[in-house]
Amino acid sequence: MSVITIVGAGMMGSALAFPARENGNEVRLVGTHLDREIIDTARQTGRHPKFNRDFPAGVSYHQIEELDVALQGADLVIGGVSSFGVDWFGETVLPRVPAGVPVLSVTKGLMDTPDGRLLTYPEVWQQQLARMGKTADINAIGGPCTSYELVAHDQTEVAFCGRDLATLRRIKAMMATDYYHISLSTDVVGIESAVALKNGYALGIALTIGVNQRLFGQNSELHFNSQAAVFGQSVKEMSRLLDYQGAGTLENLAVGAGDLYVTVYGGRTRLVGILLGRGLNIDEAKAELNGVTLESLVVSVRVARAVRRAAELGRLNPADFPLLMHVDSILTDKQPVNIPWESFTFERD
Amino acid sequence: MSVITIVGAGMMGSALAFPARENGNEVRLVGTHLDREIIDTARQTGRHPKFNRDFPAGVSYHQIEELDVALQGADLVIGGVSSFGVDWFGETVLPRVPAGVPVLSVTKGLMDTPDGRLLTYPEVWQQQLARMGKTADINAIGGPCTSYELVAHDQTEVAFCGRDLATLRRIKAMMATDYYHISLSTDVVGIESAVALKNGYALGIALTIGVNQRLFGQNSELHFNSQAAVFGQSVKEMSRLLDYQGAGTLENLAVGAGDLYVTVYGGRTRLVGILLGRGLNIDEAKAELNGVTLESLVVSVRVARAVRRAAELGRLNPADFPLLMHVDSILTDKQPVNIPWESFTFERD
Repeated sequence: MSVITIVGAGMMGSALAFPARENGNEVRLVGTHLDREIIDTARQTGRHPKFNRDFPAGVSYHQIEELDVALQGADLVIGGVSSFGVDWFGETVLPRVPAGVPVLSVTKGLMDTPDGRLLTYPEVWQQQLARMGKTADINAIGGPCTSYELVAHDQTEVAFCGRDLATLRRIKAMMATDYYHISLSTDVVGIESAVALKNGYALGIALTIGVNQRLFGQNSELHFNSQAAVFGQSVKEMSRLLDYQGAGTLENLAVGAGDLYVTVYGGRTRLVGILLGRGLNIDEAKAELNGVTLESLVVSVRVARAVRRAAELGRLNPADFPLLMHVDSILTDKQPVNIPWESFTFERD
Repeated sequence: MSVITIVGAGMMGSALAFPARENGNEVRLVGTHLDREIIDTARQTGRHPKFNRDFPAGVSYHQIEELDVALQGADLVIGGVSSFGVDWFGETVLPRVPAGVPVLSVTKGLMDTPDGRLLTYPEVWQQQLARMGKTADINAIGGPCTSYELVAHDQTEVAFCGRDLATLRRIKAMMATDYYHISLSTDVVGIESAVALKNGYALGIALTIGVNQRLFGQNSELHFNSQAAVFGQSVKEMSRLLDYQGAGTLENLAVGAGDLYVTVYGGRTRLVGILLGRGLNIDEAKAELNGVTLESLVVSVRVARAVRRAAELGRLNPADFPLLMHVDSILTDKQPVNIPWESFTFERD
């Protein structure tokens, strides 16, 4: 039995308490300052307010003030913050993780740089820690996994990535269950890029649903030819971006394609895409969603900005990314949806 | 304006009459001996019995006895038979196509050989014609396109493949519309393989839906983690099979992935997969579907047989295809569904 401390009691952090605890570990779930009510509720009811199933018996719940206590004796620290909590996690949590204890982060995303590169969060954190004269062993989770389905014990396949395969194997031994299946990869850039790049593309596929609702009526049947067309184009563009990241392997692409597949069906990215496809602009779509800032939109814009910058520097050709460029024009320049179908075609002799 | 003769008035052949005619061509739709009632109905009502929309005005309808007349003066012959009509098409139709007139086939599938190779239908037909001392210019359509959505004018992206790019460009000029977008490729093996290989994998994804219905109830919500897990594995296995076909390009894989995406939602392959996942064996599932023989099942079995044979010959490793092997065990050996989740994981140092 190991001690696993999860920091961040949002849906994904909380969902990981299920395989972690069901696998026999001691699990301590620590809320951030934004999770105060979730922790209160969990203490009172044994359930996350957004889940329809109780936490496994034996999970303990902690407010952020108890972080240091909850980290004592931990064999693994899981980082469960959203991408908006990346800086906070690097400044506040990582420096307090005891030396030698591996971290496993579920935060998906990329940061773009002024010279058109895309950094993974593990890289961002390593740099942040280095400035403080510290280090940490930061591993990460990629792959298609929605939290509520993990809670429901739907069969789930993810990839853990990190610098050291032996460490990854130890973490897998702590977390793997008969419904939570784990690949291991030391290609952190590849796995983390694959699962972050999908965001703009999931939005692109959802656009077609909204466009068809506009053309055929909001209660019309779903059409899949157009979704599949955008899916195929997405696979091409994601593969080219993985190449740009120096990570163009089949395994990475497959993880990204699976993650894209699940994201098309999951939650707010889909909803924003549908609203945009129906004819709302991005401000109107966000207003419909009560002004919620979506992680997926932020990541899409960063990736597009990096591609534009890399194009200026002659390292990428924007014509290879017509879908991403269109999504970015919608998000950044508030342009209307006008999917460039013909630009997705190719000619190969 | 060109003259386009479509042979085969099933759903896909008939659907192609829409872009063909709306693009201004003369279109002659010729039913096979199995399509007699469809042609009768189309003559009387102007509509295919399975479509909810009339054919464009001006399409003419012909019984098989009028084939030679309908072929006179054709600039393009579209082959719209199912994979069960492949031999008939090669024996009866292709030899009657006037010399120099290109053929464009929509039939998706592959034939396996005793030495574990997989032949495309254009290859099979060329061999068949060669035995008769004849030749034909056989092109083909791949990519994600369900017939009823093409009829609905959902945006659709396909790939035309053939030996000569100039011919492909001429055919594209005849067929492209503002909703029918066409890539061109001289990699016939690649495009045809990509869109045939997806069959077993679409069935595999559908299995998870049935498994979850068995576990959580038939009216339970769809789960996508498990679908996405199988989707990701499918991309890996399809890519390896494209490599085996000497056609492992990103474009081919993207066409295959898009086609897989659309097939998961389309029709009977999905339904069989769900029935199998619920716990029926293949005979019971077929009985539920009134004993209909499904093209997709036939193709899956052929692909699996070729992989097994190639493995015997040391050219492939079955461990690289755990999903296909499992699907084949269900179809061929009537084994129960027991998806080998852990075998989908990988370890990459």
